[in-house]
Amino acid sequence: MNMLVDGEWRTDAYESTDDDGSFERQTTPFRDEIRDDPDARFQPAAGRYHLYVSAACPWAHRTLVTRALKGLEDAISVSVVDPYRGEDGWQFSPEKEGCTRDHVHDADYLRELYVNADPDATCRVTVPVLWDKEEGTIVNNESEEIMRMLDTEFDEYARRDVDLYPEGYRDEIDRIIDEIYEPINNGVYRAGFATKQGPYDEAVDDLFAALDHWDEVLAVQRYLAGDRLTEADVAMFTTLVRFDNVYHTHFMCNVQYIREYDNLWPYLRDLYQTPGVAETVNMDHIKEHYYTTHPDVNPHRIVARGPDLDFEKPHDRDDLPGGPPSDLVAAASADD
Amino acid sequence: MNMLVDGEWRTDAYESTDDDGSFERQTTPFRDEIRDDPDARFQPAAGRYHLYVSAACPWAHRTLVTRALKGLEDAISVSVVDPYRGEDGWQFSPEKEGCTRDHVHDADYLRELYVNADPDATCRVTVPVLWDKEEGTIVNNESEEIMRMLDTEFDEYARRDVDLYPEGYRDEIDRIIDEIYEPINNGVYRAGFATKQGPYDEAVDDLFAALDHWDEVLAVQRYLAGDRLTEADVAMFTTLVRFDNVYHTHFMCNVQYIREYDNLWPYLRDLYQTPGVAETVNMDHIKEHYYTTHPDVNPHRIVARGPDLDFEKPHDRDDLPGGPPSDLVAAASADD
Repeated sequence: MNMLVDGEWRTDAYESTDDDGSFERQTTPFRDEIRDDPDARFQPAAGRYHLYVSAACPWAHRTLVTRALKGLEDAISVSVVDPYRGEDGWQFSPEKEGCTRDHVHDADYLRELYVNADPDATCRVTVPVLWDKEEGTIVNNESEEIMRMLDTEFDEYARRDVDLYPEGYRDEIDRIIDEIYEPINNGVYRAGFATKQGPYDEAVDDLFAALDHWDEVLAVQRYLAGDRLTEADVAMFTTLVRFDNVYHTHFMCNVQYIREYDNLWPYLRDLYQTPGVAETVNMDHIKEHYYTTHPDVNPHRIVARGPDLDFEKPHDRDDLPGGPPSDLVAAASADD
Repeated sequence: MNMLVDGEWRTDAYESTDDDGSFERQTTPFRDEIRDDPDARFQPAAGRYHLYVSAACPWAHRTLVTRALKGLEDAISVSVVDPYRGEDGWQFSPEKEGCTRDHVHDADYLRELYVNADPDATCRVTVPVLWDKEEGTIVNNESEEIMRMLDTEFDEYARRDVDLYPEGYRDEIDRIIDEIYEPINNGVYRAGFATKQGPYDEAVDDLFAALDHWDEVLAVQRYLAGDRLTEADVAMFTTLVRFDNVYHTHFMCNVQYIREYDNLWPYLRDLYQTPGVAETVNMDHIKEHYYTTHPDVNPHRIVARGPDLDFEKPHDRDDLPGGPPSDLVAAASADD
């Protein structure tokens, strides 16, 4: 691992596991917000903001899915980093399949933007990054907050009428996003980066208890918050879609596959088949990133084969109340 | 890894992967045989031979299963090493659950027997070892050969009339044991110990092609060689029983679980439920051994949780022709 310390790149600094072998994720330092408010420093606009993502990263993937569902592709541009993250951190490898150059700075490394935004930055260099081309700085690099901004502040610029944080569901969405974070989204990392048996066991217990719980919930409702597709589903999706091919083996979350769950597996396919979502999934990037980037977990950097999942298989969840936003479905039909 | 070189213990010598990243298994040097023949140097007898095994090792496990099926427990004594194999190689840890002391030499390390048998031994120190208490030497340390000797040369001392190498099936048994060795029994090691992507991919292709093939075969016949339980099934069993909990994740053989196969999984349960077999399976030793002994594969030596398999679930293979040897079934009924 590596990070910026007072604007200097250091490869001897660690996000780290605690002395007791538990993985501790640090908070991110850039936490400004775009608000549809004339007094706000950062106001929504088309063409002003740029998103930096790795297609491999589940946190960045949340923002990509939200952008796709809302139809914000024209309003918010994107650069995609190399899925392999080495000693120099995230880098741009435009020649590589599925990657792009840095469309804003033409930088070689993502860390250059961080130093650009703050010459004394002391932090990990992570994706996603929401960059403001007008002020030349990072607005935010926390995935839930970026997802929320794209979802709620850009309706004017969105091609589709899709609301993933609808009134009447908001408390429940916030509750679920919070509830699934520690055992599931971060739980797979706690299992995979544990350096001792105790913290691993605890992470695996928490993870599968939570998956079992949501599998039950999803037997009787189509989405995590009920009959509406929401940000909570986006947050769950980017973890579930990586699970069988990466977390299961690479992070030893191997009690069972998602595809063995009665409801989580059809639910995952339902989300995958929601118009716009499949295009955001790059399984090659996902597999390359994890298996080659953590020699401490997988010393020979061999990419495990993994199961061949049929995400296109019918999900049979149409009988449950609700469904994807009508504007999404209409757009998809028009495309046919 | 480590080995004996001219009778000296060396921790800098390797069984090794080739330059191209492929795992190459060395042949074993002790290859004498016990033969029911008055001219043979090693003749079958009760109490003369001692078996050294690790309950974790699939090769040693073959000899344990054969001994159990034949009912040779009183004729051939056994010592069980510590499932953890460190810098000093296999060792005796009598205080540990499921382990024993060295009943013959009271040695601390298995390598002591090898030097005892040959002061200039240059070889890896492996299990199983078939020791002759009369001559004070190793008869053989190759698992298939020991399995064959126990099966065919000790009928006089066996409690049960069980023949795992029956006339009329022998060519087929030899053919199958040979056919499954490279892709399946050794294939999981080729996948797990590969240090480059190419050899890993090749091993995984071979492995799952072979498993798919045998899954089809087992749809219409109860055992690998047809209607009789044979040594071929014993050879397959000790790999399959380790698969979902170890090879799948630790060796990244993760295309699918055995428990997802239509026929291999009931077949595995059928073998497990054959009288005498379940008692030879020590899943704690199996998991501890693999996950803690290969830091090059699993640096933090964390034991993965793995699926909770119900080996006792009915296998429903009674409709296929054949079944366990009648003497085994009778013995099991008598025990009830």
